[in-house]
Amino acid sequence: MFHKTFYGALLTACTLTFPTVGVMTSAVMAAQSVANATAERNNLSGNWILYVLQNGEKTDSARVRLQQNGNVLTGTLNELKLTGTVANGSVTGQMLRPDGKAFGGFTIQIGTQVDLHGTIRRSSGNEDILLHKIGGEDVAPQTRVFIPTKYYRVFSGSIAPVMHINSGDTVKTTTVDAGGYDMHNISRSAGGNPETGPFYVEGAMPGDTLAVTIKSLTLNRDSALSNASLIPRAVTPMYFRSEKLDDSVSGDWKLDREHGTATPAKPTEKLKNFKVALKPMLGCVGVAPGNNTSFRTQWLGPWGGNMDFHGVGQGATVYLPVAEEGALLFVGDAHAEEGDGELNGDALETSADVEFTVKVIPGGMQGEASMPRIGDSGPRVENDEYLMTMGIGGSLDEALQKATSNLAQWIERDYKLTPNEAAMVLGTSIHYEIAEVADPQVNIVAKISKAALAQISK
Amino acid sequence: MFHKTFYGALLTACTLTFPTVGVMTSAVMAAQSVANATAERNNLSGNWILYVLQNGEKTDSARVRLQQNGNVLTGTLNELKLTGTVANGSVTGQMLRPDGKAFGGFTIQIGTQVDLHGTIRRSSGNEDILLHKIGGEDVAPQTRVFIPTKYYRVFSGSIAPVMHINSGDTVKTTTVDAGGYDMHNISRSAGGNPETGPFYVEGAMPGDTLAVTIKSLTLNRDSALSNASLIPRAVTPMYFRSEKLDDSVSGDWKLDREHGTATPAKPTEKLKNFKVALKPMLGCVGVAPGNNTSFRTQWLGPWGGNMDFHGVGQGATVYLPVAEEGALLFVGDAHAEEGDGELNGDALETSADVEFTVKVIPGGMQGEASMPRIGDSGPRVENDEYLMTMGIGGSLDEALQKATSNLAQWIERDYKLTPNEAAMVLGTSIHYEIAEVADPQVNIVAKISKAALAQISK
Amino acid sequence: MFHKTFYGALLTACTLTFPTVGVMTSAVMAAQSVANATAERNNLSGNWILYVLQNGEKTDSARVRLQQNGNVLTGTLNELKLTGTVANGSVTGQMLRPDGKAFGGFTIQIGTQVDLHGTIRRSSGNEDILLHKIGGEDVAPQTRVFIPTKYYRVFSGSIAPVMHINSGDTVKTTTVDAGGYDMHNISRSAGGNPETGPFYVEGAMPGDTLAVTIKSLTLNRDSALSNASLIPRAVTPMYFRSEKLDDSVSGDWKLDREHGTATPAKPTEKLKNFKVALKPMLGCVGVAPGNNTSFRTQWLGPWGGNMDFHGVGQGATVYLPVAEEGALLFVGDAHAEEGDGELNGDALETSADVEFTVKVIPGGMQGEASMPRIGDSGPRVENDEYLMTMGIGGSLDEALQKATSNLAQWIERDYKLTPNEAAMVLGTSIHYEIAEVADPQVNIVAKISKAALAQISK
Amino acid sequence: MFHKTFYGALLTACTLTFPTVGVMTSAVMAAQSVANATAERNNLSGNWILYVLQNGEKTDSARVRLQQNGNVLTGTLNELKLTGTVANGSVTGQMLRPDGKAFGGFTIQIGTQVDLHGTIRRSSGNEDILLHKIGGEDVAPQTRVFIPTKYYRVFSGSIAPVMHINSGDTVKTTTVDAGGYDMHNISRSAGGNPETGPFYVEGAMPGDTLAVTIKSLTLNRDSALSNASLIPRAVTPMYFRSEKLDDSVSGDWKLDREHGTATPAKPTEKLKNFKVALKPMLGCVGVAPGNNTSFRTQWLGPWGGNMDFHGVGQGATVYLPVAEEGALLFVGDAHAEEGDGELNGDALETSADVEFTVKVIPGGMQGEASMPRIGDSGPRVENDEYLMTMGIGGSLDEALQKATSNLAQWIERDYKLTPNEAAMVLGTSIHYEIAEVADPQVNIVAKISKAALAQISK
Repeated sequence: MFHKTFYGALLTACTLTFPTVGVMTSAVMAAQSVANATAERNNLSGNWILYVLQNGEKTDSARVRLQQNGNVLTGTLNELKLTGTVANGSVTGQMLRPDGKAFGGFTIQIGTQVDLHGTIRRSSGNEDILLHKIGGEDVAPQTRVFIPTKYYRVFSGSIAPVMHINSGDTVKTTTVDAGGYDMHNISRSAGGNPETGPFYVEGAMPGDTLAVTIKSLTLNRDSALSNASLIPRAVTPMYFRSEKLDDSVSGDWKLDREHGTATPAKPTEKLKNFKVALKPMLGCVGVAPGNNTSFRTQWLGPWGGNMDFHGVGQGATVYLPVAEEGALLFVGDAHAEEGDGELNGDALETSADVEFTVKVIPGGMQGEASMPRIGDSGPRVENDEYLMTMGIGGSLDEALQKATSNLAQWIERDYKLTPNEAAMVLGTSIHYEIAEVADPQVNIVAKISKAALAQISK
Repeated sequence: MFHKTFYGALLTACTLTFPTVGVMTSAVMAAQSVANATAERNNLSGNWILYVLQNGEKTDSARVRLQQNGNVLTGTLNELKLTGTVANGSVTGQMLRPDGKAFGGFTIQIGTQVDLHGTIRRSSGNEDILLHKIGGEDVAPQTRVFIPTKYYRVFSGSIAPVMHINSGDTVKTTTVDAGGYDMHNISRSAGGNPETGPFYVEGAMPGDTLAVTIKSLTLNRDSALSNASLIPRAVTPMYFRSEKLDDSVSGDWKLDREHGTATPAKPTEKLKNFKVALKPMLGCVGVAPGNNTSFRTQWLGPWGGNMDFHGVGQGATVYLPVAEEGALLFVGDAHAEEGDGELNGDALETSADVEFTVKVIPGGMQGEASMPRIGDSGPRVENDEYLMTMGIGGSLDEALQKATSNLAQWIERDYKLTPNEAAMVLGTSIHYEIAEVADPQVNIVAKISKAALAQISK
Repeated sequence: MFHKTFYGALLTACTLTFPTVGVMTSAVMAAQSVANATAERNNLSGNWILYVLQNGEKTDSARVRLQQNGNVLTGTLNELKLTGTVANGSVTGQMLRPDGKAFGGFTIQIGTQVDLHGTIRRSSGNEDILLHKIGGEDVAPQTRVFIPTKYYRVFSGSIAPVMHINSGDTVKTTTVDAGGYDMHNISRSAGGNPETGPFYVEGAMPGDTLAVTIKSLTLNRDSALSNASLIPRAVTPMYFRSEKLDDSVSGDWKLDREHGTATPAKPTEKLKNFKVALKPMLGCVGVAPGNNTSFRTQWLGPWGGNMDFHGVGQGATVYLPVAEEGALLFVGDAHAEEGDGELNGDALETSADVEFTVKVIPGGMQGEASMPRIGDSGPRVENDEYLMTMGIGGSLDEALQKATSNLAQWIERDYKLTPNEAAMVLGTSIHYEIAEVADPQVNIVAKISKAALAQISK
Repeated sequence: MFHKTFYGALLTACTLTFPTVGVMTSAVMAAQSVANATAERNNLSGNWILYVLQNGEKTDSARVRLQQNGNVLTGTLNELKLTGTVANGSVTGQMLRPDGKAFGGFTIQIGTQVDLHGTIRRSSGNEDILLHKIGGEDVAPQTRVFIPTKYYRVFSGSIAPVMHINSGDTVKTTTVDAGGYDMHNISRSAGGNPETGPFYVEGAMPGDTLAVTIKSLTLNRDSALSNASLIPRAVTPMYFRSEKLDDSVSGDWKLDREHGTATPAKPTEKLKNFKVALKPMLGCVGVAPGNNTSFRTQWLGPWGGNMDFHGVGQGATVYLPVAEEGALLFVGDAHAEEGDGELNGDALETSADVEFTVKVIPGGMQGEASMPRIGDSGPRVENDEYLMTMGIGGSLDEALQKATSNLAQWIERDYKLTPNEAAMVLGTSIHYEIAEVADPQVNIVAKISKAALAQISK
């Protein structure tokens, strides 16, 4: 049995109240999460996630909203309408399609447990279901402070969340560098992109989209680490073999935060005047990948992760497909600056203070209430100037196909364009960035300016 | 025997004089090229290309400079020093290495033919050689006008040059669009990127680099053609299959040269206000590929060709490796504008007036007097802001490797950097462009700003 | 903190004795695994795994063998020699290199806990360590029967093992098909390659190699499922788009186990006589991927998994790099037959009885006591005729490079060949198989016949 | 203007008569080809190729068959029916579709020239045409002997054919090795796959398929050359860089033609007993690529060329798409043996005697009278056991897609299968070979056994 099911019941239904600006450690979180969620069971009203069980395993899910008035239950299951009657410790009712036609019947047992078991009955057969109460009610946005004491090196739904937050909330926290060193250059974790989080977002469920807006990203120390060589994936075999590499050249950088520049910390004579402008970014923004999978934090995928795209900086909003209850958001791997492709394997790796706001958008990125189509979709990013889509794949050719299709689908949906119209727009106005070729999957970004899109008639 | 050898002798040694601004057609050119080149044979002084013959076929070449004073001959063969004595219709002499050590002996027969046959004698055996007189002397730069009457659809050394020009000369000419239509929308050629040229550049020989600077590029009509669909290579198979394409949407564009914009010629309601800024470029700049090969003008390779990179516009200099005597330069395929990747298969295809200057740089792009290393090198481009290198390959992964290595080698040579130093510079400051994924080979461009490079100490 | 550390202490030191042929369910296993491992703590003799801790997290490991005689401790740590003295609840001692030079000192606390904490002291600094007792003693091989009651859909170290076995043991068990259906066509799990296992192999530790020999693989029902279409990765976009697919054609197959053939279950007129020879194979043989990662059972990687190679049948031995204590072996996804590439997405998916023997080979696949080099190495397979290596990658080009290098390194090590000699052998005698292009990573197999290798002089 | 048009008129209409077994050199051929083709102009009956001219350039072609009785002309143009009247030095007539509807009118001028000019008149406009008389009549097959005196290093339509042969004829000739050395190890050409040919096949025209059956392929010397290293494309960058290569190891091989084996000519101690079985094959079988293009003989493409597939041996038939009049067939680059992938860059390169038969199959490989679809199609090969298709591309991923689609289209056409039925057959029974990764394009071969196909009902 998978680890996910063990902690789920304990954590998700609790109501957490934080001061607008407060401090929580994961130890405090753990204590709070044991609060008894069944206290409210005298009424079924609220938001639920419905899981379809197959041989006891959760294989599909849907969003359920219930309203109980006395023994009368009404509600929705995705686009279906529910009506039922509460009697003798269970609810029995019917599901109707949007057009009013019958979809099937259901029964839910109301026990003393946090989660409710039941059955959906259709002409094609019965399905076992399980309902789990989730948050997601409209509450006033808060700003929360999280000071991490531990960092995680997998993107995974198996890690207990360090904090529960609501859609609309803002989190102020910090990240260590890719090697696990903090703002004081003290080792806080083994290396490999240790992450801050995960943050459980109330009301987020599989099939939704999580929007993460980076309100501020501020470097908090004066050094960064990188390498002074090019990765083999970026150069020809002949170049890779023929060039003698001199490991005595340091890949360390000095950050001048006041003037916004970085210079080699121990420069060779040739590079003593070389400097680059700081352009802080987060290498990693990711949610739990779902399906009980856990990826090392060097990885990236449809769920985001180590995207290593220099467009993920202050002011950017990252859209990620939620695959687990609560989304379980991770952030980390700040870069003071990164050239295209992340050709040194590392960018200018450093620590940072970060402030981000989350928002749950019901329904997938391909359209309302639809699951992302596997392979076509990847994370999306938006800033004041651009819509940007990731294409993450095993080769640049695959990555480009995904990035282009992802962007085409985005503007077709949002601007009501036909594929031909989208082709006219993209063919003249698309721009690609090669975000990175250094990670287990490569990442190409397709982008289009909002100025170009503003010319499209409504 | 290959066609190339037949015309070579007739054309290359003639001395052409043009008015600073004149008009030549290829018919006039052909007449002039029959001028008897042997008239000057009483003295061997001058520039020659030396071919090594194997079974009568030219398999290698070198640059020879000779100075004859009476019966005393001195000169160079690449880096070797030559001394010889003219007697009885032949020259016999010795070749010395730069360090003064003996390399071998040589004999050259001085007949009445334009080309001279001879032998190089070394301890490892003899080699048959052939010397062919070439131009390349310092002459005052001229501006020449060429009005094409015929266009070519292969990059090939088998086409008789339409004009002989000198290093330093400027050519004013015109190009038709990719479909063969001229400034009056009159068909002048079958389609597929018909080219203007080829131009024979005096003194250019295999192993040299030809620099082509686009002095001006001016659109000369008010329409462009493109397509209203995305090519399969740019999108996922699922996107490609699932989207219904509507061929009734026109891919034609209207060009407003006064205001510098393009708009769909027959827009749908959605696109009635859509416009893009004109950014004229040449899709094709190429030299003869060498080795008796001929590629369709959709092709691109180390020799340039259909590079379809929007950076090849006014003010840009394109560096191409010369593979045949005279380089044989072709230009064509103007685009009014092109998005990254050339995703519609066509960009905004139109006709143009173009003015370019050529310069022969002895020696290959990897260093003086060395042949380009196959696979590592591709065309290079430079403008006021950037050094840019092409990576042309069968996949984007291969293209990126070539582009990066090409740029690393360029800055290592010109700025005397070690690979580690180059890695520090590129890792922070490289930028990629995906020029096109629409042609038989894809093209990724790696670039670095001259502002960044200016920080490198001499 | 990761789930793995919670169960580790409870399970690994217990001594399990099974009858030569017995039956264990995972429920029985769980009960036994709580046996108190500390009962033997009066003597440190035995096999241990040493973990290096960084910020409390295990980041490296080594094999330790200890022998305690009274208060005198001797032993090895990989290739280092240990000597120490037990006193006052701790051991203090020295480590010597094979050449007799000092490596550093160590202290181990002997508490009442199952695991022992300690410190390694070197001139470069101290490192926290943790020692965990493991099995791996020579015991008589046994045959064990395992009847699964639950199947798992991730390759993960987070799943409690269903059985502990020793190196040399044979396991008889069964697998369900890729959709979760058993020998009676009863659904036993959700689909997606549900696995039997994981099996904990005593004494296997990170850096070792696990050899899994398939002693028998017997189909146990008369049906298989597949699809009647080609996956997009296997065909051109134009083919994929242009061909009208008819979903009414069934992809079901009937298996004639007596005659060893499969035929379409509901054939079209054209295919009514079409049959293929059965060639049973296991699509999945994998170990836990390590580093707290969990991959869906469609995935494959250096740790094996869904390799979908038709060479993994009866008589084959699969070599996998151990990444977690006990290796945690999974098997599943039997195919009655599979064409190259697994072009229908599914092969002929069915259930099977399988009998396999495991053997722990200390040290990695690149050589004794060395960790596999990332990227160069992948699973290896051997049968009576061939040595075979997997190349698993994001593109076929990457996969081929890995497969070739993997095979070159194998024969260089085992036959003491130089790379040049290996090149002479492989250049004439290598053969490739394209195992699959249907999974999240593609798999190319490089193979060479043992008959060819037998000609190499010792 | 292109070279091709100059020689065309002189060569193609001549009637050549050879003894059944005779000897022709290219010198003799040249003399014969000047025979006056216009002598027969008193009657238009015969086979013609019709070219559509656009701005004087041939841009399309069709097969025309004419029958003249007095002043009445009848015939066909592809599937159209022609009727016309001869009067006053021209023919005027009509073209009807197969359904009897009018297609348009035509006029042909009958001058004294070999080729005839004319016009097609349709409602959509007029098109200039040119008719060129070709052979292709049924004649008794002959066996011809060709002893080459010169070899060519481009696949090109610009080379004058060395011999004209008829469909059905057999040619006995010889090939030199890839370095230009003949059966006596005498250099006959510079290296790089010098080819024997080209052979002009009467009646072959663009859009047709040329079938080349290798009747016998016999090695004619006792040595072969190869390399003792692996090419970078076949191994990981890390393997390529880390392994020290020892150039003192010889890549030469000794051939024992009596016993059918090859052994290293100067073996290391380890390889003193290493041998491989001879399996002679032709690395190159190709036709002129068309469109005035010329590719170096290392290249391969839809037109065949340097396919380097070990299945192209005695008994194999290679199907190539004709792109130029007469097809212009080249053969060369014999290998005594080749491992998959041609990993040493060279296989066991040697010279050979070859005997092949040609057959012109009207219409393209996708179906009768249709041009091959670009990108989907490549050369096909057939032997007693297998149908085999080439997938030639810039990456292995692209090559596999082309090979699979090519095979699917072949069996769909020949066995009247739907794509679903083809998927059932290929999914279980396809086998891939990785022919080579050493050339400018890689080559994957998809194959299926005739035994499997024989089970498909008619």
